[in-house]
Amino acid sequence: MFDRVFINAVDRNGRPLHLAVRDGRFAAVGAERPEGATADTVDLGGRVVLPGFVDGHIHLDKSFVGDRWHPHEPAATLRERLAAEKRLLGTARPIAERADALIAQAAAFGTVAMRSHVDVDATTGLTNLHAVMAAREKWRGIVDIELVAFPQAGVVSCAGTADMLDAAVREGAGVVGGIDPTTLDGDADGQLDIVFGIAEKRGAKIDIHLHEPGQQGIEQLLRIAARTRASGLHGRVAVSHAYALGEVPADDVARTAAALADAGVAILTNAPGDCAFPPVRQLRAAGVHVFTGNDNIGDAWWPYGNGDMLQRANLVGYRSGFYTDDELNVALEMATHAGARVIGKDGYGIEVGCEATFVAVDAPNAAAAVAGVPGARWVVRRGVPATDAPVTPRLNFLR
Amino acid sequence: MFDRVFINAVDRNGRPLHLAVRDGRFAAVGAERPEGATADTVDLGGRVVLPGFVDGHIHLDKSFVGDRWHPHEPAATLRERLAAEKRLLGTARPIAERADALIAQAAAFGTVAMRSHVDVDATTGLTNLHAVMAAREKWRGIVDIELVAFPQAGVVSCAGTADMLDAAVREGAGVVGGIDPTTLDGDADGQLDIVFGIAEKRGAKIDIHLHEPGQQGIEQLLRIAARTRASGLHGRVAVSHAYALGEVPADDVARTAAALADAGVAILTNAPGDCAFPPVRQLRAAGVHVFTGNDNIGDAWWPYGNGDMLQRANLVGYRSGFYTDDELNVALEMATHAGARVIGKDGYGIEVGCEATFVAVDAPNAAAAVAGVPGARWVVRRGVPATDAPVTPRLNFLR
Repeated sequence: MFDRVFINAVDRNGRPLHLAVRDGRFAAVGAERPEGATADTVDLGGRVVLPGFVDGHIHLDKSFVGDRWHPHEPAATLRERLAAEKRLLGTARPIAERADALIAQAAAFGTVAMRSHVDVDATTGLTNLHAVMAAREKWRGIVDIELVAFPQAGVVSCAGTADMLDAAVREGAGVVGGIDPTTLDGDADGQLDIVFGIAEKRGAKIDIHLHEPGQQGIEQLLRIAARTRASGLHGRVAVSHAYALGEVPADDVARTAAALADAGVAILTNAPGDCAFPPVRQLRAAGVHVFTGNDNIGDAWWPYGNGDMLQRANLVGYRSGFYTDDELNVALEMATHAGARVIGKDGYGIEVGCEATFVAVDAPNAAAAVAGVPGARWVVRRGVPATDAPVTPRLNFLR
Repeated sequence: MFDRVFINAVDRNGRPLHLAVRDGRFAAVGAERPEGATADTVDLGGRVVLPGFVDGHIHLDKSFVGDRWHPHEPAATLRERLAAEKRLLGTARPIAERADALIAQAAAFGTVAMRSHVDVDATTGLTNLHAVMAAREKWRGIVDIELVAFPQAGVVSCAGTADMLDAAVREGAGVVGGIDPTTLDGDADGQLDIVFGIAEKRGAKIDIHLHEPGQQGIEQLLRIAARTRASGLHGRVAVSHAYALGEVPADDVARTAAALADAGVAILTNAPGDCAFPPVRQLRAAGVHVFTGNDNIGDAWWPYGNGDMLQRANLVGYRSGFYTDDELNVALEMATHAGARVIGKDGYGIEVGCEATFVAVDAPNAAAAVAGVPGARWVVRRGVPATDAPVTPRLNFLR
């Protein structure tokens, strides 16, 4: 009757959970052990079952994972940082190999989908995109990867980039990116015309990096919300980072959150360590869709990260002052369901009919898993355990 | 010639490292593989060797590790929090068993020494202290545990506590604690007279919890520094948390740091997630001894933590904006050598003559280990591997 049964687990609230799989999907999910002949029974040893993790923001073309460790080099300006990045990556292994190593590492932690930004501009062209697309192809069916054409060096101020963004979307990037329309391009309407124009013409989604500070950042968010409403892209636009929401008074957060919720603009935060970031609680209360991702992982921008979205959920909670079980579950939701919705992943979740993909970790419930981040993971994809026993992921740096 | 040789590791800078052990101490440490007959050779598989971790601030009597998971309960005031803690711990397994479970978990991550605060006051008496001392005895020779008699409910304002603190030090607490002399006791000189009085009379060290805000906290730090100078306790006084140092202008930090450095008062920070905390870089530059610890772990105060001091070093770096390899090594030092010095652990370090105790983790160097926090640990104590292979610690909650 079932292809495989997973017994002796607990659900996110710590209650007994058994799972039955047929044709790669959950056929039974509940406190009662499923009856019926089964070829295979896997004892999950009391572990908690979590949905596969969704990394809502990663840069697969930038990481040194898959290459040797590169010590971080300080840079005084964005231009210096971009120059250092170009120089360091110029000596590293090819993008496709590094992206492959990072996807492998993230997959070992339990990531099943990600949205990766990929540098696309007039000088880089589609080189990075093609390389990451090659890595994506290798992982098809294991990790779903949505690609964002990311104009790291600006759009208007980097002549020729607009055409490359359009070409990137034609070739397989499902999302058109943007970055700091005012502070980087000095022409907010100019950049947004291009970004929204491509999205409307090609049916693409939008994800804009926004590091602009304070009231300037707030104005940009309101501008993006207004354009989203006007273009009918409700639910298809995200703004990543949006630090400004962590820098302004609560009243400004409230009116901006109302506009974002009304327009259906999602906010991504990775809960950075040493600067202000969006107040997750207030945004969610206002109806804003908030999700999370690892962002940079061991690259020229910073040395942190290992690809683990459970650790990222922990950091979101830690930085947000989330203490209750409900709050810890919000952090987990940001690293699972919220990202899945942004990426548009179908059949996602621990429910009958959903794809039988999950991560079992050694904790009494989901809140404890977020608070304590157990290292060992038992990943199951479409009903098939990836390994015979839980595995502790390695850091894939070359030695 | 050697009892055991550990080959094929790397040092904190990623350079080849081999280690030879005789009589539980390092007899050779270096890039050359030691020659000479050896009963046993262990291949460390290219892992980086780190000193055993030192948790400079933990509360072994408070954690629910060793008991079932207890969801966090919000509390509006300190009194409410203390009441909730008392109620929740009243139904939990005995302190000695929970402390044992938490020490075991921390030891599995590679902790070799800790300073544990233990509630001591007029109502609790020495109950908690005796229980934690029982757990300490069980781990003697594996984890060195220094105990702080901690007046959680105040000293002056909790009649009879002064005598209990003195009794605690007589019975085995090497450190006398204090807490918020002004905001909790309303009598800074009164509390400090008692705390410093006991330390001087009994030859004990001092470690004071200080949550007092802004300029009030700064005044307290200066008061503690002045008393430390006056009492000749240089190097034997620590202030834990000292959030005020993260809240005041740089000039105030500078003059306070100068006073702390001059008096030999150390600062402990656990790099909290959602409030200001001491600026590690500035304090160290001024000569202040700064160390770290996990503080509360899955208890009535907050749900976070798992006992891993490598993860704590990561959080110190993440929250402090430490990006370079040197900075990441500072965070590691705070979780190793800096704590060892505060606790007074002899023969500590990866050098010939030191106790042959270390943690091998799967990373190309120490900076990468701090940035990526590999889950699997291979702990060696006095030359003896704790396990045949690396182990990924579990969370010791009851199911």
